[in-house]
Amino acid sequence: MATLIAPSNHSPQEDAEVLKKAFEGWGTDENTIIVILGHRNVHQRQQIRRAYEEIFQEDLVKRLESEIKGDFEKAVYRWILEPADRDAVLANVAIKNGKNYNVIVEIATILSPEELFAVRRAYINRYKHSLEEDVKGMLMLLVGLVTSFRYVGDEINPKLAQTEAEILHDAVKEKKGSYEEAIRVLTTRSKTQLIATFNRYREIHGTSISKKLVDEGSDEFQRALYTTIRSINDHIKYYEKAVRNAIKKLGTDEDALTRVIVSRAEKDLKLISEVYYKRNSVLLEHVVAKETSGDYKKFLLTLLGQED
Amino acid sequence: MATLIAPSNHSPQEDAEVLKKAFEGWGTDENTIIVILGHRNVHQRQQIRRAYEEIFQEDLVKRLESEIKGDFEKAVYRWILEPADRDAVLANVAIKNGKNYNVIVEIATILSPEELFAVRRAYINRYKHSLEEDVKGMLMLLVGLVTSFRYVGDEINPKLAQTEAEILHDAVKEKKGSYEEAIRVLTTRSKTQLIATFNRYREIHGTSISKKLVDEGSDEFQRALYTTIRSINDHIKYYEKAVRNAIKKLGTDEDALTRVIVSRAEKDLKLISEVYYKRNSVLLEHVVAKETSGDYKKFLLTLLGQED
Repeated sequence: MATLIAPSNHSPQEDAEVLKKAFEGWGTDENTIIVILGHRNVHQRQQIRRAYEEIFQEDLVKRLESEIKGDFEKAVYRWILEPADRDAVLANVAIKNGKNYNVIVEIATILSPEELFAVRRAYINRYKHSLEEDVKGMLMLLVGLVTSFRYVGDEINPKLAQTEAEILHDAVKEKKGSYEEAIRVLTTRSKTQLIATFNRYREIHGTSISKKLVDEGSDEFQRALYTTIRSINDHIKYYEKAVRNAIKKLGTDEDALTRVIVSRAEKDLKLISEVYYKRNSVLLEHVVAKETSGDYKKFLLTLLGQED
Repeated sequence: MATLIAPSNHSPQEDAEVLKKAFEGWGTDENTIIVILGHRNVHQRQQIRRAYEEIFQEDLVKRLESEIKGDFEKAVYRWILEPADRDAVLANVAIKNGKNYNVIVEIATILSPEELFAVRRAYINRYKHSLEEDVKGMLMLLVGLVTSFRYVGDEINPKLAQTEAEILHDAVKEKKGSYEEAIRVLTTRSKTQLIATFNRYREIHGTSISKKLVDEGSDEFQRALYTTIRSINDHIKYYEKAVRNAIKKLGTDEDALTRVIVSRAEKDLKLISEVYYKRNSVLLEHVVAKETSGDYKKFLLTLLGQED
């Protein structure tokens, strides 16, 4: 039982022309867009898209995107796509956000097997990755990392560093099929070898791989790659930034602050604290004293080596 | 380079007694806790724990948890644990939150291979699941669902429903090693068969499996199981709730609202709307009209079948 009210007689050509008129002139005539597209079924909408393209040599979807905005645009955009294509977009947005697993579950469970298969096909056409590969990427990295048992030693294979710098480069650029290879590299090589690879990357590409990752946008998987590379490359700098971010947050991220201080107080917190001072020109103890209070503050300062 | 300042001469027995005194009497003497524990290295802290247990037949960690609270408690708790055990706790909290993948990456990359191995051992001891299994659970479910190609038909195998209701029960109760089986059931059986299994579950346990899941707490994996079961069992009810939650949120979740209306307007939005009315005694169109505005509102109402 649908709610949509669509006329049985409509002319795709006429609809396309009315829409074109709605786009032109001073401002967009949103009402016409709503009246037309809000009253056409999936088949009719696809006919309109084709007619519009034929008559005006222009992609209706792109034109709509440029004419309207906000939640209205999002709704119209999702509406005008074919269902399988729309679900591919919804799944991709959910993966990029790294939350909303429920959207993926919805699509996978509520659709019929044939519909789900169509979504997977649409997903590949759009993103050049399979849906399941994108779902898996993040977790393959995490599982690979936690089950790793790396060689510890100083030997470096420069040729390998060269090849694998390129593997990482491909993954960072989201080229097809390169995730698994990048994950294999990051989860099996020794840290010394990986640092050589990161250095080789910088020589080849004129920028560090972590900088490149930041520039390339940031879905959740890329953020995890970023964390992996930075913490392998120089964990002192990594922790300095973790502390800096924890403090910078509105309201301080106490969990992160506690984690770093407690975990490193007996190891290298002095080094982290020195790097912090160099970077921020303020003593870590002073910032911690300012941002925390009570017994919690006293305890952290004690671990930071401040004598009472 | 550590920041911790710990004396080389300390008596674990004396420390235990001073701590005990700090707990007793009117209020807790937090300062003593800080002065003692904040100045003992990992080895010394474990000696104190043992001495305290021997002398007072009481677990120092549990006692601390009951004496102090908030960020101070969390920091002391993490500090008093052995490092591998602490990291197991940190990883588990990160998994349960379903965010903070960086914590897992940190632990997996910054620790030495032997240290990481110790964390995995500590994790199993504490949680009776392996760390990698807990990281994987979610992934296996999602990948299983999106790659499923279920049989569509009305045949039911009642014996299978019985056996598999128990498999699901074990997974819901977080028994060891039952995830994979539950995932296999949920990702391979036909929907008709699964609904029979859910019904069997209710007969055996006197409550629905989704109700049971809610009661058993909610890490991210369990929330995904919950979504899976509800959307297979009755997707109309599932969507009614999705809409209800989207509207209930402070500020409305437009993405979720758009998703449901756009995806179902040509399918079964009328049914969803009827269930919504029965559940909330208010028309969905009225609520949408109240919570949205402008062209976005007009468009959604059009899809909901409201004539202008």
